[in-house]
Amino acid sequence: MTFQKGIWQEADPVLKGFNEQEIIDGVNAGLAVRQLIEKTVDEIWKEGFDAVWFMGIGGTWASGMQAEIYMRGHSSLPVYLGNAAEFLTIGDKKFTPKTLVVISSVSGTTTEMVDLAARVHELGAKILGFIDNEKSILAQQSDYLISAKGNDALKFLMLCNYLMYKNGEFDEYERFNAEMEAHLGRALAAVEKETDDWARSYVKKQASFREQNPDYPIYFVGSGMLYPTAYSMAMCSWEEGFWLRTKSIAAQEFFHGMMEVVVKDTPLIILIGEDASRPLAERVARFVPQVSENYVILDTKEFELDGLAEEFRSALSHIVMRSVFMRLNAYWELELRHPRRIRRYYRQLKY
Amino acid sequence: MTFQKGIWQEADPVLKGFNEQEIIDGVNAGLAVRQLIEKTVDEIWKEGFDAVWFMGIGGTWASGMQAEIYMRGHSSLPVYLGNAAEFLTIGDKKFTPKTLVVISSVSGTTTEMVDLAARVHELGAKILGFIDNEKSILAQQSDYLISAKGNDALKFLMLCNYLMYKNGEFDEYERFNAEMEAHLGRALAAVEKETDDWARSYVKKQASFREQNPDYPIYFVGSGMLYPTAYSMAMCSWEEGFWLRTKSIAAQEFFHGMMEVVVKDTPLIILIGEDASRPLAERVARFVPQVSENYVILDTKEFELDGLAEEFRSALSHIVMRSVFMRLNAYWELELRHPRRIRRYYRQLKY
Repeated sequence: MTFQKGIWQEADPVLKGFNEQEIIDGVNAGLAVRQLIEKTVDEIWKEGFDAVWFMGIGGTWASGMQAEIYMRGHSSLPVYLGNAAEFLTIGDKKFTPKTLVVISSVSGTTTEMVDLAARVHELGAKILGFIDNEKSILAQQSDYLISAKGNDALKFLMLCNYLMYKNGEFDEYERFNAEMEAHLGRALAAVEKETDDWARSYVKKQASFREQNPDYPIYFVGSGMLYPTAYSMAMCSWEEGFWLRTKSIAAQEFFHGMMEVVVKDTPLIILIGEDASRPLAERVARFVPQVSENYVILDTKEFELDGLAEEFRSALSHIVMRSVFMRLNAYWELELRHPRRIRRYYRQLKY
Repeated sequence: MTFQKGIWQEADPVLKGFNEQEIIDGVNAGLAVRQLIEKTVDEIWKEGFDAVWFMGIGGTWASGMQAEIYMRGHSSLPVYLGNAAEFLTIGDKKFTPKTLVVISSVSGTTTEMVDLAARVHELGAKILGFIDNEKSILAQQSDYLISAKGNDALKFLMLCNYLMYKNGEFDEYERFNAEMEAHLGRALAAVEKETDDWARSYVKKQASFREQNPDYPIYFVGSGMLYPTAYSMAMCSWEEGFWLRTKSIAAQEFFHGMMEVVVKDTPLIILIGEDASRPLAERVARFVPQVSENYVILDTKEFELDGLAEEFRSALSHIVMRSVFMRLNAYWELELRHPRRIRRYYRQLKY
């Protein structure tokens, strides 16, 4: 086999898989779903509900956790989080037929969610489904269906914002939407561009560390709405997508056990966002450099987010951080020569 | 230095640190706290409350999670879980002055809990504190104080049982208590005796695996009330106490990412209890042997628990599993020559 320079150039690009216009169009398509969200919530509001439960499994459970944490700090509405598979076994005696269950799914076929939807209906409650595939079974099971591609965090954010607006808790609702519609797509594309160089070299360094230490876990730490980001990036992207060992931990729990295993070479990724929980992650960021040299602090505050007012940044930290991980994911895929979509076991074996 | 046979015999004992009478007396002392729990709850019940929040940090957060999961499946009382440090930053708009906050602490001095207690009082709510050290600041901050040594899971279980009894949800309350008082201490001591041989050889094997793979994490999987057990044994015992790398995961989440990193040599500890969530852990136990040979399934069903009726076993699984870990912890301490109480960083450095 001869050495083909062309292949190597193509395989190690700057801004791998990045298309600015696609990002902007994608975000704007997500934001355009707001009209349907508002119309749907108006209908639900008129019918009444006694609680809103975000329910999911894996990545969609983490998205629900983000919504629940956001609402917990900002709204007196009774919003809770549930895990679909756990609910199917343990149940919850507080669940009533007036509970509104909110779910999301890309494929619309996740077994646990299909079973959950059936159980929710047996219990007499209704489902608001954000189901990308409108022909899927979960779409059919949704009493209120919102079907649009991608942007799950953005869709949940818009839902939460409108619920708060209806509840008299969000005066700046219109301005937040206007600013997102005018600027968010471009701001997120800018985050990816600014992150790219660093992400490429970070992944190269960690990939070479990993060659020497193949089973050393990479630790993710985050607080508030960035704990679910840490959880899902560690588990749904790096473990499931790249077969890398990871562990995620909530910043507030870090000092109650996990810190004792951090030593000079321990890889840590500390996610810092701008919600009220920020001091919890900052505390970890102050401690870690004393005991590890293989850490990185990813702080959403370092991004300009041009056109988005200071007061809205906290609600967007998890979406901004996701853009950072788009770059990291692109370079892991390249560095490991491991297409992110392949699975070793999921839907390949019976269990 | 000459080889001293005596030292080696002493250092590698059967039933290290085991004292049957101490276990029985300890459990019975815990059960005797019930009178005070009942009197206290009677008073709280008369005053009224609109929700019960178990709040903690680290190990006590995990204990609160056990109580919340237990109540979720069995009681319509509004019982929730909160993390102290997270609450101090994000808060919760649903919190009211009629919320009853339940906390527990051995030292009575944990910083986050002391700050939480002050915040709870600012918000006008009251604290039921299970504080072992009755002279500590947290004991002083408790509006209702229950001070007795150890047995935190048992104390929370008795509290939950009595709340359900008061709420007309637990007809068998007296019988459950009578059976625990007559048999639980001896049954738990028997669990330790039955586990001992296995625990000694398991730890020996894992310690030798670890010498070859010092940073390979040990995975803990559990469902229902055994997920918090997995979480706290992994983090508060093995990480904090023995500086072993671990990761804990809820069985329902295992199939949504983590399973992809399990290969032939991956160490897994699968905890199976007897609450309604049992099928979730059983599913993991069916899958794992196909892809790893370094797993162990710890199933509480294998213990006789002589004198305790079938219908009460589900409520006790986490307490039974704790006894299994008493043996594992004893042999890690021996095998690593690492006294469990020493800390590398906790309360040693400023952060």
